[in-house]
This record gives sequence, structure tokens and C-alpha cells, in this order.
Amino acid sequence: MFITLEGPEGSGKTTHIPLLAEFLRQQGYAVLTTREPGGTAIGNQVRAILTNLENTAMQPRTETLLFLAARAQLVEEVIRPALAKGMVVLSDRYADSTLAYQGYGHGVSLEELRTLLRFATGGLCPDCTILLDLDAGVGLRRKTQCGEWNRLDAYALAFHQRVRQGYLELAAEQPQRWKILDASQSLDVVQSALRQVVLDILRASSTLV
Amino acid sequence: MFITLEGPEGSGKTTHIPLLAEFLRQQGYAVLTTREPGGTAIGNQVRAILTNLENTAMQPRTETLLFLAARAQLVEEVIRPALAKGMVVLSDRYADSTLAYQGYGHGVSLEELRTLLRFATGGLCPDCTILLDLDAGVGLRRKTQCGEWNRLDAYALAFHQRVRQGYLELAAEQPQRWKILDASQSLDVVQSALRQVVLDILRASSTLV
Repeated sequence: MFITLEGPEGSGKTTHIPLLAEFLRQQGYAVLTTREPGGTAIGNQVRAILTNLENTAMQPRTETLLFLAARAQLVEEVIRPALAKGMVVLSDRYADSTLAYQGYGHGVSLEELRTLLRFATGGLCPDCTILLDLDAGVGLRRKTQCGEWNRLDAYALAFHQRVRQGYLELAAEQPQRWKILDASQSLDVVQSALRQVVLDILRASSTLV
Repeated sequence: MFITLEGPEGSGKTTHIPLLAEFLRQQGYAVLTTREPGGTAIGNQVRAILTNLENTAMQPRTETLLFLAARAQLVEEVIRPALAKGMVVLSDRYADSTLAYQGYGHGVSLEELRTLLRFATGGLCPDCTILLDLDAGVGLRRKTQCGEWNRLDAYALAFHQRVRQGYLELAAEQPQRWKILDASQSLDVVQSALRQVVLDILRASSTLV
């Protein structure tokens, strides 16, 4: 079972994933968590290039290809082997981030991006994607307060607003795959909703098997 | 005028390009030289990942996407601005390296690679590509002797033989774009042939204008 968390900056994905993973382990599931970009030694080297505030000259196409490179490595080295062992894989971002950020955010063609994504992932799609939906301005304020600012956060607010809108459109196109949670609520409320959504999916899947 | 040099490891591209550039400058041409992967601050960070001998886990798709990322940056930041100024751009490797190494070498689909290349380069094709053709074994021996061994050189001889064969097939498909020089000859003989080929192209092009 491959579950991805998506959402704008500051929506809380990175806080929620370890809590969710720990809860699922207590329920008896074997869980692997990953994050994008990164999650492998090579992917972390790519992540350092992407987040370096000095790389202001980076072109949108370069950025897209670097995200895809990190993802290609993550899929082959980590995600596919874990899925093959029957683990639940929880990923902090995946292919939908490319469509939201480089597609809706930077205006790169969605059709071209989908072709590139098929190449990078070898066609691996999530079974379920959870959107932690949040107003872009609120998310960015959260990030400035917690001090984890990087090159990607520094895009203008309008960029982040297009990203959020992009996520909502992607979710509307494939409602069977996406679940939307309101990430403006307190951490406890969001975590509790997340646990319920994921447990429902895992139980439905084991009933199907 | 955009001229690319291609060829297997040890074929002498990196030695020949500065000599050729200097000669062309003496003839009155404004010349810019670039190299792949790299040629920009961001591209050089990507090059460090690609050549690092510790990155043995790198997947062919990751490798392909990293080369493309460095190239996308080089095209937008360096090559297109230089061409717009009327300069002669000489590049040490370009898109045909992807087809030869990742396509013929690693077996990645040529059709997929061509789609990715169009994305990375925005469709920018060389006016002329010169293949410094050399037996793969001879080229690798040259590289071990000069001590510049890196992760990419360390692929098996059979890989490098497929790369050379790939170059020859690419050249046969588009004979009007490619010129093949025998790089087993002495440096002076090859440099002299290179100068003649490039001068002929530049003169033919100025006559056409």
C-alpha cells in the first residue's frame, strides 16, 4: 500500500508523518516513511542543490528534472523494494508535487510533466493521496516562524497560491484516489483525521484481499 | 552557430576544444566553450553527483535525469544567450551523449529519451556535431593513464562499446549534421582535421547568410 501526503509549504506533512507511522506500527503494520526530494544518499545530494538559497539562477526545467532525478532513485532504491515486502509506504510528497509546483506553479506543461513522471517513476502511482489543504499565506507564515526557510519557499505568494489551487484541481480530477483534510485545524485534530483515513484505506484493502 | 563534440571516453574532446577555440578566435570568431555535465554553477553541483565514485547505487533513470537537469540549465543560462549574441558555441558533449550513453549504453528507450531531450533543451539542436571516433578499449586505456577516472568511466567495457556503436548509428541517421573524425590518430592530425571541418562549416554558413 503506497500512500502519499501532499500539500503546500507549512501544511504539516513533515510533522504528521512520523506520528502517523508510529500509530500504524502500534496497529501492527510494517511502515516505511520517505520524503521528497531525498530519501536516498543520492537524492539527498540532489535535495541540497534544490534547497540551496544561493542557486537563484535555477531554471524551472532544471528544477523539474532535479526533482524527478531524486524521485527516480527513491522509487527504485526504496519504495519498490518496500512495497514488494508488503510494507505500507508513507511518502512526504511524490509525483503530484511536480504537477502542482512545476506545472500549476511555474506553468510547465502538464502533459509534458506527465510524460516525464512516467519515465521517472516507471509508472508507479500511489494507492491513496492525502492533501493537507491550507491557505498559502497561512502556510508560509508557519514556515517563517519555525525557521526552515529554503530556496523553494522563497517563491512569491502568488506562486504558492497557484500550487494550492493546482492541488485542489488534481484532487477533483481523481476523487477516488485523493482525500482532502483541512490543515488549518489543530495538530491533534488533523492527526486524528489522518489516522482514521489511513486505517479505513488499509482495512478496506485487506478486506479486498 | 552551435557545434557539439561527441565521442567515447578518452577520445580527446576535452583536449581538443580549447585548442580549437583558440584557433577560431585567431580567425576572428567570438567563441564560447562549454562542457557537459556542468558549465554553470548549478550544473557543476550536478556533475559532482554524477562523477562521485561513491554513488554506485545510481539508477540509469536517475543518471539520465541528472544529465538532463545540468543540460537544461546550461542551455538557458549559457548557450542560448551566447547564440543570441552571434557567438560560435563549442560544447564538449550535448544531447547525443544522452542517446549514446543512456540509450545505447544502458538500454533506456530512445523514443522516451528524445521526448525528455526536447523538454530539457527546449528543442535546441546543434548545427553540426563532430564525432571523435575511437575504439572503446583504447579510449578507456587513455583515461586510466591520465588519471581522471570517475564513476561513469567505471562501467564495463561492453557498455562503452555499445556507446561507440550508438554514436556511429546516430551519425548514420543524420549524415548532414554529423562529421566523423578518426581519433586514434595523433593529437596534431586530429586537431588539424577538426579546424578544417569547423572552418568549412563556418564559412559555408556565412556564405549562406
